[in-house]
Amino acid sequence: MFYHVKELQYRAKPDRPDPVFARRLQEVLGGQFGEISVAMQYLFQGWNVRGGEGKYKDLLMDTGAEELAHIEMLATMIARLLDGTPDLELDDSVNPVVAAILGGSNPQHTIVSGLGAMPADSNGNRWTANYIIASGNLLADFRHNLTAESQGRLQVSRLYEQTDDRGVKDMLSWLIARDTMHQNQWYAAIRELEEKENIVVPSTFPRKLEKQEVSYTLFNYSKGDESAKGRWAHGPSMDGLGVFNYVDHPVAYGKKPKLSPAPPYIFNTPPAVLRKSDDTPDPNTK
Amino acid sequence: MFYHVKELQYRAKPDRPDPVFARRLQEVLGGQFGEISVAMQYLFQGWNVRGGEGKYKDLLMDTGAEELAHIEMLATMIARLLDGTPDLELDDSVNPVVAAILGGSNPQHTIVSGLGAMPADSNGNRWTANYIIASGNLLADFRHNLTAESQGRLQVSRLYEQTDDRGVKDMLSWLIARDTMHQNQWYAAIRELEEKENIVVPSTFPRKLEKQEVSYTLFNYSKGDESAKGRWAHGPSMDGLGVFNYVDHPVAYGKKPKLSPAPPYIFNTPPAVLRKSDDTPDPNTK
Amino acid sequence: MFYHVKELQYRAKPDRPDPVFARRLQEVLGGQFGEISVAMQYLFQGWNVRGGEGKYKDLLMDTGAEELAHIEMLATMIARLLDGTPDLELDDSVNPVVAAILGGSNPQHTIVSGLGAMPADSNGNRWTANYIIASGNLLADFRHNLTAESQGRLQVSRLYEQTDDRGVKDMLSWLIARDTMHQNQWYAAIRELEEKENIVVPSTFPRKLEKQEVSYTLFNYSKGDESAKGRWAHGPSMDGLGVFNYVDHPVAYGKKPKLSPAPPYIFNTPPAVLRKSDDTPDPNTK
Amino acid sequence: MFYHVKELQYRAKPDRPDPVFARRLQEVLGGQFGEISVAMQYLFQGWNVRGGEGKYKDLLMDTGAEELAHIEMLATMIARLLDGTPDLELDDSVNPVVAAILGGSNPQHTIVSGLGAMPADSNGNRWTANYIIASGNLLADFRHNLTAESQGRLQVSRLYEQTDDRGVKDMLSWLIARDTMHQNQWYAAIRELEEKENIVVPSTFPRKLEKQEVSYTLFNYSKGDESAKGRWAHGPSMDGLGVFNYVDHPVAYGKKPKLSPAPPYIFNTPPAVLRKSDDTPDPNTK
Amino acid sequence: MFYHVKELQYRAKPDRPDPVFARRLQEVLGGQFGEISVAMQYLFQGWNVRGGEGKYKDLLMDTGAEELAHIEMLATMIARLLDGTPDLELDDSVNPVVAAILGGSNPQHTIVSGLGAMPADSNGNRWTANYIIASGNLLADFRHNLTAESQGRLQVSRLYEQTDDRGVKDMLSWLIARDTMHQNQWYAAIRELEEKENIVVPSTFPRKLEKQEVSYTLFNYSKGDESAKGRWAHGPSMDGLGVFNYVDHPVAYGKKPKLSPAPPYIFNTPPAVLRKSDDTPDPNTK
Amino acid sequence: MFYHVKELQYRAKPDRPDPVFARRLQEVLGGQFGEISVAMQYLFQGWNVRGGEGKYKDLLMDTGAEELAHIEMLATMIARLLDGTPDLELDDSVNPVVAAILGGSNPQHTIVSGLGAMPADSNGNRWTANYIIASGNLLADFRHNLTAESQGRLQVSRLYEQTDDRGVKDMLSWLIARDTMHQNQWYAAIRELEEKENIVVPSTFPRKLEKQEVSYTLFNYSKGDESAKGRWAHGPSMDGLGVFNYVDHPVAYGKKPKLSPAPPYIFNTPPAVLRKSDDTPDPNTK
Repeated sequence: MFYHVKELQYRAKPDRPDPVFARRLQEVLGGQFGEISVAMQYLFQGWNVRGGEGKYKDLLMDTGAEELAHIEMLATMIARLLDGTPDLELDDSVNPVVAAILGGSNPQHTIVSGLGAMPADSNGNRWTANYIIASGNLLADFRHNLTAESQGRLQVSRLYEQTDDRGVKDMLSWLIARDTMHQNQWYAAIRELEEKENIVVPSTFPRKLEKQEVSYTLFNYSKGDESAKGRWAHGPSMDGLGVFNYVDHPVAYGKKPKLSPAPPYIFNTPPAVLRKSDDTPDPNTK
Repeated sequence: MFYHVKELQYRAKPDRPDPVFARRLQEVLGGQFGEISVAMQYLFQGWNVRGGEGKYKDLLMDTGAEELAHIEMLATMIARLLDGTPDLELDDSVNPVVAAILGGSNPQHTIVSGLGAMPADSNGNRWTANYIIASGNLLADFRHNLTAESQGRLQVSRLYEQTDDRGVKDMLSWLIARDTMHQNQWYAAIRELEEKENIVVPSTFPRKLEKQEVSYTLFNYSKGDESAKGRWAHGPSMDGLGVFNYVDHPVAYGKKPKLSPAPPYIFNTPPAVLRKSDDTPDPNTK
Repeated sequence: MFYHVKELQYRAKPDRPDPVFARRLQEVLGGQFGEISVAMQYLFQGWNVRGGEGKYKDLLMDTGAEELAHIEMLATMIARLLDGTPDLELDDSVNPVVAAILGGSNPQHTIVSGLGAMPADSNGNRWTANYIIASGNLLADFRHNLTAESQGRLQVSRLYEQTDDRGVKDMLSWLIARDTMHQNQWYAAIRELEEKENIVVPSTFPRKLEKQEVSYTLFNYSKGDESAKGRWAHGPSMDGLGVFNYVDHPVAYGKKPKLSPAPPYIFNTPPAVLRKSDDTPDPNTK
Repeated sequence: MFYHVKELQYRAKPDRPDPVFARRLQEVLGGQFGEISVAMQYLFQGWNVRGGEGKYKDLLMDTGAEELAHIEMLATMIARLLDGTPDLELDDSVNPVVAAILGGSNPQHTIVSGLGAMPADSNGNRWTANYIIASGNLLADFRHNLTAESQGRLQVSRLYEQTDDRGVKDMLSWLIARDTMHQNQWYAAIRELEEKENIVVPSTFPRKLEKQEVSYTLFNYSKGDESAKGRWAHGPSMDGLGVFNYVDHPVAYGKKPKLSPAPPYIFNTPPAVLRKSDDTPDPNTK
Repeated sequence: MFYHVKELQYRAKPDRPDPVFARRLQEVLGGQFGEISVAMQYLFQGWNVRGGEGKYKDLLMDTGAEELAHIEMLATMIARLLDGTPDLELDDSVNPVVAAILGGSNPQHTIVSGLGAMPADSNGNRWTANYIIASGNLLADFRHNLTAESQGRLQVSRLYEQTDDRGVKDMLSWLIARDTMHQNQWYAAIRELEEKENIVVPSTFPRKLEKQEVSYTLFNYSKGDESAKGRWAHGPSMDGLGVFNYVDHPVAYGKKPKLSPAPPYIFNTPPAVLRKSDDTPDPNTK
Repeated sequence: MFYHVKELQYRAKPDRPDPVFARRLQEVLGGQFGEISVAMQYLFQGWNVRGGEGKYKDLLMDTGAEELAHIEMLATMIARLLDGTPDLELDDSVNPVVAAILGGSNPQHTIVSGLGAMPADSNGNRWTANYIIASGNLLADFRHNLTAESQGRLQVSRLYEQTDDRGVKDMLSWLIARDTMHQNQWYAAIRELEEKENIVVPSTFPRKLEKQEVSYTLFNYSKGDESAKGRWAHGPSMDGLGVFNYVDHPVAYGKKPKLSPAPPYIFNTPPAVLRKSDDTPDPNTK
């Protein structure tokens, strides 16, 4: 159950409006690695923790609730940046200022959302749950959390460089700091689980059931052997259970596949046609 | 540039057809963490490596090319599992065997793809590039790669348990082993980058520009303090640059936001109406 | 800013597991009119209220926060219904019980989410922000809210009839009651706004700028005149500003459109070809 | 069955080309509340009317057919606005006029559609049936229709302000007038149904089966009690069957949920690991 | 502008209800090559014809309007097939008949659409305009039309085999016949255009500007030379303007690409790190 | 199985950076008819060939592998065009050069991909497998291949006109030439299949089972008889098995459909309400 307080976690006030930056800022609100993604991901992971309602679930709910507050800050900031949207007479578009705003801003901010933030990215793609995962395996999921905070902090850092508005930079410096914490926290949780389970997910699948002869092999499918110089190509494997090896000229272990013809009620190309087709027609007749 | 050989990387032959399992196997071909996702992700990451064409790029291309081979193996296996699709007289559906096949299989395998594999998941959602990322920051991206191999091996392991077909299990044991390698290899690459850059992505954003007072703080937004017991709540931070701290009753740093009215040409609810509305109407009149 | 408490708003415990119903219940969690939709819609509408931070915004935040609690209840219920997922040996699928579960359940619940709820509907379509709207015009948006609660209560009522599990029915009876309230509350808010603004959205667009001669006309584009019998075809219009009229044989007010040829650098079909094509070829020559 | 006549319902001729406005106008052709949405929605609702083929179905078919004509008008207008697309030498882009067109227009209008309209919105998102509903319950659906006409008229009004082309404004004034009618007509139909069924959808779900003690309760989940001042917080409920009440400090009715561990073949985080994890590691060791 | 008549183009009445087949039939209503796709595609192509409003545009509008009638027939048939949906007590699911219906039917038909057809495919994926094209080049587009009618007739034929309901088969035999006509008509139109423009689209791009030395070359990127036996590998090219040739061992014409480092404000992996990484670490130290 | 070589199939080096064109070029990389579409389509068609592993499958794999090389060339070119992205101070946006870049470029190229290519189109829509088909019927599929190469060459030709960068034009001239070949090759393959199977897909559906009286009929559903002048309206049909005929005033073959009421547990509008509604209310009472 959730309670809302009206105050923001941190202030979200630009020095001045900027509808072009408003569009860009949408990326970290409603994009692939925006705040909606992390909020929904952590909450679903938290709700799906099974057989242990302790510190991991609590951490997920703490952070999920915080990310809801970040959505709110970004929505507020975007709305304020949109205050400056001019009363466009589109035929004024040869005016360079208007042209810049027309070109760089999101038309849906004036047509659809009434100068409000949208659950969408910087190109106007609406948010989709395709972006997130809650698998029930916490090590697998925390790795996605660490990824999301890494990509998220990267994107916010890039945006930080794309404005000189002090109010915007102030808020972004908060988000960047929080992403520092969140990277650290998922890192800590991952290490703890790796110490208990070793590094390969899932840890409980019986090793003897996998084709162990290729569990530590690097196949060189890309001509050139630069990859042979990596840590992953020699020495003990990272899980401590094998030794990396490098195969310079990988060969096929399987045969050419040959599929049976489909039955007639599927109406694929009839086998007779396929066979006949292998008689080359005379190229001189059309 | 790519060359194809017709032999499979590893054999992909079931003991017997099973259209129900064919549908399920689609998940690791065309689902969020299926082989199309990893193939496309590694190739795009490889193509986008900037300023250093060495071992990382080569590793990405090696692995991306291998994942293309896995798509091929799964497509072959799925087609063979579909061989057993009966000539459905749907009115035979009270026959339990037919009912099971009808219910558990994907109707598009007979209607759309002609008993062939599809670029879709186990619910028939077509593959989308929303699943993948290539950000230009290798540490951020390799973390997604490690995630993808973790989720992928998890899903293949689950599928391994859902069949007793020895041919299918044989192929899955190959894929599980390769995912063991791929988790190990990205782990190795991540460690190497972390040793050079420390763990927080991006490493080059100036620390002094982030709001450092909250860079190592866990805010307890979820009632209950189980999360305070975690490694992330006390002691030195994982990046070695700070000390974790725990805030039991986080307060708001920002104020209640108040947005300006939209200009008239936006046609939002007029401010006058909003103000009037705050005079409560008499509940006894409708 | 949001705080979470671990207790559920209302209990979410089935009498017994039922993975088939778990799949169906996903519809009202992650479908078009599920709880994610209403939660996100109310929160975005609330964040985007401009120029009046009074009771409407508060009502939106109250209800948005409550809907987050409903997501949580449904996620919990679905996870518990999934407890009964059998250790499928898919070749047991001729067993009618297993066949029923195989056919009626969502394969991603075992392969992807590890017996957890997903942000998806009953066919496994992931949630998308295409479902929601926050336009800045509260009357327009509250009408969508009333719609969403109507469709939502309809779907939950249908699901109520599809199970005889008392625990499930108990929780659904809570959700149905809450939807009763939410329909009532949006209805009240709509009436209040309509009394202040009249019924046509947006109320502030100058009436004289619309083509008023067709503002109250029903055009009969579908042969048969049953629609002429409706309230909408005669008498004063609902907004009290016009009189409905019915046009039995609507004629075109515009001419046949004729588009200019595209310039050559667009490479459309060349106009010369289009013109030549109007000379009919002799059907007897191929 | 449908017949087409080549004349337009109303003229669609701009004074002059304007590719930037062409992009914007796409919103009301192929966006969430564009003409494709209403056309498809009304037709599907009409086709799905059950047990009464009278005036409602006829009204749906009348209006659905009209909306097809609106798609046609908009497609024509957009194509004509695109006539002005210059022969872009993109390196001329420092020319402010070209820059404005490059920035504000949709690249797919020149690359994909050959200066034709597309079934997409102003950001180039293709139309999707996620936008529409036909539920079989006419009151629920007519509410969505009223919403769609409200959002649609709002968007067209906003676009009306973004151009001073008299030809465009002329056509938009037609569409705005038709949306006035359509809001009036769905309003009339809704009122009629509400008078017969009362306001809560679905009207036939037995009231005694819902948890009636919370059917008229406003829970204050958002700190601050502005919402208590609303009509929805006191007095008789809008359906006349209850009395609104306001709960300032809502408490949880459910307990903390605790999920069973997943069975081993699901490969979630093992319960033993979860338990062990609750022993905090020493923060001084990494 | 469109007029609707209430009679169906052809009858759509099954002998008996069959909710499982109803789900399957959705494929040709709202799937990739269903009737919504062809209706929308032909109408948009028609509206976008430029510089020649003659027989091609008329043919497109004739056929587009007919496809609207086919949507209507399928929607009617699906609704009638859904009449047989039982009052599911899901716990009766061990009953083989109920199990078959549960497994094989679309849950949204009972939860979302109220036993009505949906704008979705047989897996419940909602229709999307991603399926269609209107490019302004009629030869390119008519080829897609011929494709769509080919895939469509193929799918309807497959469905014809999946039922023995005479009413359903009767309607499908109508649709199959119409697809015969539509394949023939697009074929005729294509031939006519090919005779005027030759076969390569677009015909107006100057041949001398393409890299003509590879305009008729088959590169053998897939080991094995079966493709050398095809008509496409030798003899005069189909456009009559060249001679096919076959390159058994294609070589690269380009060099290894090397991208410049990104500027610092992009925060990609720093070039210094990439360079350092090429010093292999000692595998014996972790 | 696939091998990668690092050299490009053809060079991909612009004369100078151009982030605006980079965005546009994305269309033919990740758009509906871009290189990802053809690569994936040919590979899936190849993998799904049943009952004949000869020249068609080999041709599909040859061409599929080549298209992977084209993705690589475009990804390289786009990355290089992005080199010129300025260090945007967005407040400099009144500078016409910066305005042009801001407006015409894709913000995700700086925020998400770090100046790398994305699997997306020129509007930033991510690639989706909705674009492709592999049906198991080669004639149906080769027609889609010919379409895709036609639309693809059309789009590349349009892009060729939108730049004067010689490096870009050089690469595009290669792609245009390859599309010339690919149109020729699919054309050859189609003709060969048509000679064996005749032109209507699928060729194996028994002609006597279709409603042959309308297999060659053009129904004039669009007022005006221009379409009667076409080859498709008279003379022998293209498949040689019938005679085209033209019906000027097509009539309905079916009756008005009337659907049964839904059962009560579906909660549609009750039939009693629908019936009552047909009594027109008095327009003078509200």
